Amino acid sequence: MKYFVGVELGVKNILVGVVDKYGKLIRKESVPTLKERPYTEIVEDIAKLITEVLDKEDIDIRSVKYIGVGCPGTPDAKNGIIVRNYTLNFHNTPIRAELEKYINLPVYIENDANCAALAESVAGAAEDIDFSVTVRIGTGIGGGIIISNKVYSGFNYAGAELGHMVVSFDGLKCTCGRNGCWESYASATALMNQASEAAAKCPESLINKLVENDYGKLTENIIFEAARKGDITAKEVINKYLFYLSEGLVNIVNILQPEVIVIAGQIAKEGEYFLKPLKEMVNSKVYCQQVRQTGITLAQTGSAAVIIGAAMLGVYKNMALHSNVLI
Amino acid sequence: MKYFVGVELGVKNILVGVVDKYGKLIRKESVPTLKERPYTEIVEDIAKLITEVLDKEDIDIRSVKYIGVGCPGTPDAKNGIIVRNYTLNFHNTPIRAELEKYINLPVYIENDANCAALAESVAGAAEDIDFSVTVRIGTGIGGGIIISNKVYSGFNYAGAELGHMVVSFDGLKCTCGRNGCWESYASATALMNQASEAAAKCPESLINKLVENDYGKLTENIIFEAARKGDITAKEVINKYLFYLSEGLVNIVNILQPEVIVIAGQIAKEGEYFLKPLKEMVNSKVYCQQVRQTGITLAQTGSAAVIIGAAMLGVYKNMALHSNVLI
Repeated sequence: MKYFVGVELGVKNILVGVVDKYGKLIRKESVPTLKERPYTEIVEDIAKLITEVLDKEDIDIRSVKYIGVGCPGTPDAKNGIIVRNYTLNFHNTPIRAELEKYINLPVYIENDANCAALAESVAGAAEDIDFSVTVRIGTGIGGGIIISNKVYSGFNYAGAELGHMVVSFDGLKCTCGRNGCWESYASATALMNQASEAAAKCPESLINKLVENDYGKLTENIIFEAARKGDITAKEVINKYLFYLSEGLVNIVNILQPEVIVIAGQIAKEGEYFLKPLKEMVNSKVYCQQVRQTGITLAQTGSAAVIIGAAMLGVYKNMALHSNVLI
Repeated sequence: MKYFVGVELGVKNILVGVVDKYGKLIRKESVPTLKERPYTEIVEDIAKLITEVLDKEDIDIRSVKYIGVGCPGTPDAKNGIIVRNYTLNFHNTPIRAELEKYINLPVYIENDANCAALAESVAGAAEDIDFSVTVRIGTGIGGGIIISNKVYSGFNYAGAELGHMVVSFDGLKCTCGRNGCWESYASATALMNQASEAAAKCPESLINKLVENDYGKLTENIIFEAARKGDITAKEVINKYLFYLSEGLVNIVNILQPEVIVIAGQIAKEGEYFLKPLKEMVNSKVYCQQVRQTGITLAQTGSAAVIIGAAMLGVYKNMALHSNVLI
């Protein structure tokens, strides 16, 4: 039996998990990232945590086939480098070379959203599906494109930035410098902004009561709870938000026609109440109505997504690693 | 030596060409489509024209390896059917089965824009490049995505509808029913509308002189000619148009990061005067600036694009034909 180790190198925590060949998580552990310190110390802690997780499960490191690291930012998957990551302040940081100082195993590096998409493809909502897209709704919108069971992120590993697809060229200013990026309208942050703005205008909205007039307490769940209880403001906010979300999803369908789009993030917990109207909106707007339609479904790998996907990177290698591209 | 036959089944004309294994066009011939007649008669004419082209080049049909048909609309590449094509009024039309009544060779079917993209990949501006996107600017905007030298059009062959990516969700009404599709702003039709509107507001614009006040005579070339001669209205129209065009192209880069985007259509004849400012606009807006950037270049296969791409369909099969997808 072979095992696979996945690392989620996050802004707050380092998570390490061991996974079987089916992408099933066996165990995970975490330590704080302490992101202000040098990357060499961070990698040293990753190596220690890998040893610890394996020890706890009594797995010999010689039974481990690959190690994968999922991290926000743009990877250079070929050279095992994080090209750029503002939140961790990584710039051309040689994660693979550093980790190989401690552990003699092949190390793969990938963007965290791409890892999450691979996890859904290997062991989640897109299992056994060749072409899938995972959309992670959080602070921004992260995306992962899986084609023929491999991460597709273009010739330079920088693709699948689905949140930075402009859907309103004269719209809201985005952190990336453009106007009207999808994530400015359809991220969780955007939903919170839309809800607090609407609730502030409507003092009788249930939202105000639920957050005790402190919009800092607002969550996706509170907005949906208010809507479920009949609050008109919350319903209107959600309806408009679903329009924004569906516009980007329809673009993805028209461009990529994946067999399935998987929605991940806190909002996916709202289940059918969220999914049903979203599906109807998307299906009514896609360009070609006469063919089998892309399914939309909710993520299944949850908080283990990045670990599982990272662990599987060596098995289902980024498509550009199979190509002749010289970057 | 093996040969390959490509058919462009257009609204006005049927074009048939014979191509060598490098995608080089050896000869092409055409007959009118006469689209009002039954598809069986159209296919009979295709078969006759294939025989004629081969005869003229003294090529034995036993030296032909594959036949490919490029056609507007949505194909079912697996079953050799045109699922839907409004302009030719095809609906689940079994082109392959009909053509096989006349010729005993494998027949492949693909959307015409996808064929054009494959042609650029095999024998044009994206030769030797694994990941490329071709954008055809005409009445609308057609797209073709090439991944690992194969046409990628999703699990149902209906993808790469790049023109129907919304870039302004409260914008101009599109024929597809949505608001603000890219082609409503960046197709050749859109450019003509933008130029005639601007010229009508500005009687002293050179555009009015060049078309003798008849906007029906307007072409891409006339607008660019006016701009080259210093006409401010034309320059402003082009600048705004390039903004619209660049917004969609940047989206494509952020999502797909192809190594090259190939621009096809009449406008590509404007060369560097068109390409240089477009490249600058795109490069300044892409999300990840720290990696090697997508190149933007002009199409090379010209009016033979669809024929060449169709002829090569059997060699570089649609990616979904390699997958496990059952549609």
